Amino acid sequence: MTGKEKLDRLIQPKSVAILGCSEFNIGGRVLQNLIKSTQFQGAIYPVSLKQESICGVKCYQTLADIPGPVDCCVIALRSTLIPDALAEVRDKGVHAVVMFASGFSEVGAEGKALQAVVAQKLKEYDITSCGPNCIGLYNTEQGVYLWGDPYKLENRPGPVGVVAHSGAVSIVLSNAGRDLGYSKVISCGNEAGTPVAEYIRYLADDPQTEVIACFLETIREPAGFRAAAHYALSKNKPIIALQVGRSETGKKTAAAHSGALASSSAVTEAYFKTCGVLTVKSIDELLETCALLVMCKDKLPTTQAIGITAISGGLLSLSSDNASDEHVALAEINEETRSALAEVLPVFSTPHNPLDVSIALFDPPAYRRCIEIMAQDPAVGMILVCQECEQALLEEQDYIYWDIVKTVAELKLDKPLAVYSPLSGGLHPSMKRILDAACVPLLQGMQETMRAVALLMEYAKFRRGAVWAQTTQPRQPKLLAEFPDSGVLSEGESKALLRAYDIPVAKEALVQSVEEAVSSAEAIGYPVVMKIDSPDIRHKTEAGVVRLNVSSSEQVQTVYEELLANAKAYDPNALIRGISIQEMVTGGTEIILGMKNDANFGPSVMVGLGGIFVEIFQDVALRLAPVSREAAYEMIGSLKGKPVLEGARGRAKADLDALADTIVKFSQLAVDNAGTIGEMDINPVLVLEAGKGVRAVDALAVKKQ
Amino acid sequence: MTGKEKLDRLIQPKSVAILGCSEFNIGGRVLQNLIKSTQFQGAIYPVSLKQESICGVKCYQTLADIPGPVDCCVIALRSTLIPDALAEVRDKGVHAVVMFASGFSEVGAEGKALQAVVAQKLKEYDITSCGPNCIGLYNTEQGVYLWGDPYKLENRPGPVGVVAHSGAVSIVLSNAGRDLGYSKVISCGNEAGTPVAEYIRYLADDPQTEVIACFLETIREPAGFRAAAHYALSKNKPIIALQVGRSETGKKTAAAHSGALASSSAVTEAYFKTCGVLTVKSIDELLETCALLVMCKDKLPTTQAIGITAISGGLLSLSSDNASDEHVALAEINEETRSALAEVLPVFSTPHNPLDVSIALFDPPAYRRCIEIMAQDPAVGMILVCQECEQALLEEQDYIYWDIVKTVAELKLDKPLAVYSPLSGGLHPSMKRILDAACVPLLQGMQETMRAVALLMEYAKFRRGAVWAQTTQPRQPKLLAEFPDSGVLSEGESKALLRAYDIPVAKEALVQSVEEAVSSAEAIGYPVVMKIDSPDIRHKTEAGVVRLNVSSSEQVQTVYEELLANAKAYDPNALIRGISIQEMVTGGTEIILGMKNDANFGPSVMVGLGGIFVEIFQDVALRLAPVSREAAYEMIGSLKGKPVLEGARGRAKADLDALADTIVKFSQLAVDNAGTIGEMDINPVLVLEAGKGVRAVDALAVKKQ
Repeated sequence: MTGKEKLDRLIQPKSVAILGCSEFNIGGRVLQNLIKSTQFQGAIYPVSLKQESICGVKCYQTLADIPGPVDCCVIALRSTLIPDALAEVRDKGVHAVVMFASGFSEVGAEGKALQAVVAQKLKEYDITSCGPNCIGLYNTEQGVYLWGDPYKLENRPGPVGVVAHSGAVSIVLSNAGRDLGYSKVISCGNEAGTPVAEYIRYLADDPQTEVIACFLETIREPAGFRAAAHYALSKNKPIIALQVGRSETGKKTAAAHSGALASSSAVTEAYFKTCGVLTVKSIDELLETCALLVMCKDKLPTTQAIGITAISGGLLSLSSDNASDEHVALAEINEETRSALAEVLPVFSTPHNPLDVSIALFDPPAYRRCIEIMAQDPAVGMILVCQECEQALLEEQDYIYWDIVKTVAELKLDKPLAVYSPLSGGLHPSMKRILDAACVPLLQGMQETMRAVALLMEYAKFRRGAVWAQTTQPRQPKLLAEFPDSGVLSEGESKALLRAYDIPVAKEALVQSVEEAVSSAEAIGYPVVMKIDSPDIRHKTEAGVVRLNVSSSEQVQTVYEELLANAKAYDPNALIRGISIQEMVTGGTEIILGMKNDANFGPSVMVGLGGIFVEIFQDVALRLAPVSREAAYEMIGSLKGKPVLEGARGRAKADLDALADTIVKFSQLAVDNAGTIGEMDINPVLVLEAGKGVRAVDALAVKKQ
Repeated sequence: MTGKEKLDRLIQPKSVAILGCSEFNIGGRVLQNLIKSTQFQGAIYPVSLKQESICGVKCYQTLADIPGPVDCCVIALRSTLIPDALAEVRDKGVHAVVMFASGFSEVGAEGKALQAVVAQKLKEYDITSCGPNCIGLYNTEQGVYLWGDPYKLENRPGPVGVVAHSGAVSIVLSNAGRDLGYSKVISCGNEAGTPVAEYIRYLADDPQTEVIACFLETIREPAGFRAAAHYALSKNKPIIALQVGRSETGKKTAAAHSGALASSSAVTEAYFKTCGVLTVKSIDELLETCALLVMCKDKLPTTQAIGITAISGGLLSLSSDNASDEHVALAEINEETRSALAEVLPVFSTPHNPLDVSIALFDPPAYRRCIEIMAQDPAVGMILVCQECEQALLEEQDYIYWDIVKTVAELKLDKPLAVYSPLSGGLHPSMKRILDAACVPLLQGMQETMRAVALLMEYAKFRRGAVWAQTTQPRQPKLLAEFPDSGVLSEGESKALLRAYDIPVAKEALVQSVEEAVSSAEAIGYPVVMKIDSPDIRHKTEAGVVRLNVSSSEQVQTVYEELLANAKAYDPNALIRGISIQEMVTGGTEIILGMKNDANFGPSVMVGLGGIFVEIFQDVALRLAPVSREAAYEMIGSLKGKPVLEGARGRAKADLDALADTIVKFSQLAVDNAGTIGEMDINPVLVLEAGKGVRAVDALAVKKQ
């Protein structure tokens, strides 16, 4: 049986039993929803020990008493009764359940243990499941409302599929009054059995679903989610995710609520990029982005810049500001476009983008002509029309704007077109109807509109396949020394690992005598750096056991003795492995490369400029490993300090190709050694001028916990 | 006659004439609005050459024919007819007009000239005016609708006074369906006569107005606006401004629309801070901030941190994220509060902030108790309750939430309390009614809510008077040399100006001979810096005419000749005033102080750390001059690079007191010399370690254009 067929029993069952049903509990609400549903033609079997019938439907004392087969069983029992209920479910031959109860992994150790029991049984009995700690699911096409909240059946079915960890948020979405229409809404709760990824695959294959909206408190199976997200992307079903827990406090709440594993927000952001998932910050943004993508995903913007029109200069100024806030570029229209516009507009108007077409109030066809001209400009990737469409418009105003909206709806452009209302307080139903019929998205709220447009542009990138990394398999780790008890590899061992991955390391030699020191220094070439090699002395500068710029054999001899004396003075019991003589790399730009092995998302690689760039401005770029060459350039390009690498402040242009190459190699190291390394830094790696490569100067690897 | 009395004739006239009225033009719309208005008891006189009556109201052929006195004349004529109409207005003894027509300063030179004529006549005839290029104004208390758009009279009057440059935005606000209620809405257009500042003063004195919402495309009279804003603040009438033209493109549109003077957005932001005006970025934010301030301005938050409650963990996580995005802090509640909460909550719940009170669904009084406990914690400055209140809620859901909303409405807290709905798609009327009656603000949209809360916190600061600068009068400029033809003062002249304002400058002497050079260097103390002083050599390093670290009399002699030779080689015709011998200041942190004399807002002062901080990260703080000591500390505190001044990266803690002192003095210099200096830099000023002060090392002043 395929995954789809298994989920069909849950999402489009032909017969539903409700275990623990009573008129006033959550089971009763499911019963009432199903009774009200005119599309649902299946059998409904309330199960209750106490009642003969509920809401006029005959009850059964046990699941076993039900005469026919049951596709799905809704369990309206409290948490501790669920394991036994699952046995009953198995005995009846049912393979799909919805569990509403809370009291599982979200409430501490006892709940976690109970959830483990439930998860084990679900697996053993081969049961597809929704929950626990959820509000259920519904499917508007077949009218299946296994939903623990009253549901407004007149809400129209539509193209948005929803998967949400939070029951409350699922309810908010259901009540949004946004009239987008949902295909399936799945409040998946703690995912004790079926994970989010399987719902996403199901929705990606669902003909009723065009976009997938997610509310996520955690990603419990990152690899599975990523594979499912890539599958959805390949089917042109955009995923828009509202992930909570970005802020420190937010994380605390998410953990308390769903037993979610906390992940740092930067890693999570990098993860979603790798998945090809669009991310938003509010439910409003989620809805507007869905509204835009539903209509535009099959006709994506041809450039990254937009054209805007309105019948008010004030609204256009505001639109420009909001576009700029979301990094949405306004297209520079060309001379030809300007002349063509000038012929349509009144003499005193200036034809530019954004375009004020006040004339539309008296002459809607002129508006139409203006938009057509704008859309023909090669710089314009899509057209946005700002138009008041508020719910509260007066009939007389509605009448004035009606012609404009109809004009826009009649446009036949080969570029995407969207209308937006400056306010987010609801849309005028008749205007929405006209635009819906013409497949023109109507958005509300200017900030949300510009955010949605930015995400449409990002989706176009995802579809071109440029951004997300390949999911290569880890190879055999190379030449990794055993971690000592301290859990930290020495500088030498860490550097040996870098060499194994062809990352250029500054020349060095570990010596045991003054004579060796002098001959090594001469072989490396003066000046050199001299350092004590000791696993017991971590803060070398503080201990006085590092000396830069040693430039003659005499100096080597003096420094050799000094370093040994300083080491003894600092810690008489320190193990001294010898003295390291190193190439003194001069010039170049200090870069920090880091690797962090996130417990949830696996290894990620970070790059930043050294010094204040990292310490004060946290100016770093982060991607999940492995990192492709394109992504490595993108990482470097996203650094605010990039001008320093490009020759700002009188520097030579740095060897960016070598840096990108090093990032790629380091990311492979991170993937291959993810089983043992928890964190690793190359700090600094010096990037020399173009053509001269890089040199790793210091490195440190820490064991995975 | 006071300003208020003059504006009363415009805003609450007892009699209105409509010049150029016809049934289907904008004048006819005013007529219909006034006829529909049940509150308006005054006389209405349509003036039309062609018609006997319009909409059943008797017409007059000319203004002069009207039998009684006329308080306000609405001019529904096109732009070119307005000058003559004003003469007619004067002849009739009318002193207030509304002018709708466009075709003035927003459409180029011809329009500007026409507006100048109109402005002159308004002044000469002592006429208070609204417009031109506007949609008029209305006053809900007296039912005066001099408004060129159909108006919904059933909209309730309310506490928000509006002043907007854009007619379209005034219409959007009027149709918002936000049910906030407006006292007066004034679409002021191009402000040919009465400026925005006068409307603000009027609204500050208006008993029906509690908050003032502005949509601004420009600030035409910054000093007048600031004074009016301070007046409103003193009357506890918060001003919330949506200023457009922040983005480069936005600016272009604003200029094309209203002939607005472009101001850089940083200066504008600094200006609004100085005014004590709150700024928002969208109409949605504007409305929610008004809704919050109306209710909370008399009971401001007691701390800068909030407590949040909801009946959903998912919504709380999202709230935390959105709060963090807007820099709204969540209060750390204390042990006592936690224990008290634990007694009310179910055993498995964790009492923390934000607080998940799912129990509220079954036990509203427990919710009430939880909020009361949270509110007693001294760290909590205000309480926010997240509650679904969407317009589209079902009756059954409404019923569940009804009890919760009523519970919240019954709370009697001594701290501000607000309820917010996670979505911005309209509010449930019955819930709104309950909360309105209890004076509890109900906001919509999570991002907008958190923005509004951040602004409430800022308003509390404004009211404490800590932030905005005093508007001191400029003093006599001190010792300023005449600007030469080049328009640039030499380093020596620029530094002399700094000394005149007691800003410590590195010691220096201008010498004309080798002997003088040696004796000056000895007097200053080695090492010294030597530089050619020439108005003709701007790029000294490039020309090789600067030498650092000159450390003996022999070196002084050699360098003296070298610099002269280099100067000659660089530009044989350069005027050489001599050689400057300067104290070589070592150590300290490089700071840039700048002054820019904005054509619109006057002088502002900028501070930033030197080098990459300014060049790469644009890490600067800017305030309008003069800057108070408190504001100077705030400027320094807002720099991202501040840790460097506080001793990061092994530095000594810098003398922040001396830096603040220098900012204050420099800002006084900026104010005093605003008549002549366009820009001035002290680059760098070195801030030495704490207690050792600062030294200005180089300075440059450029003449005002």
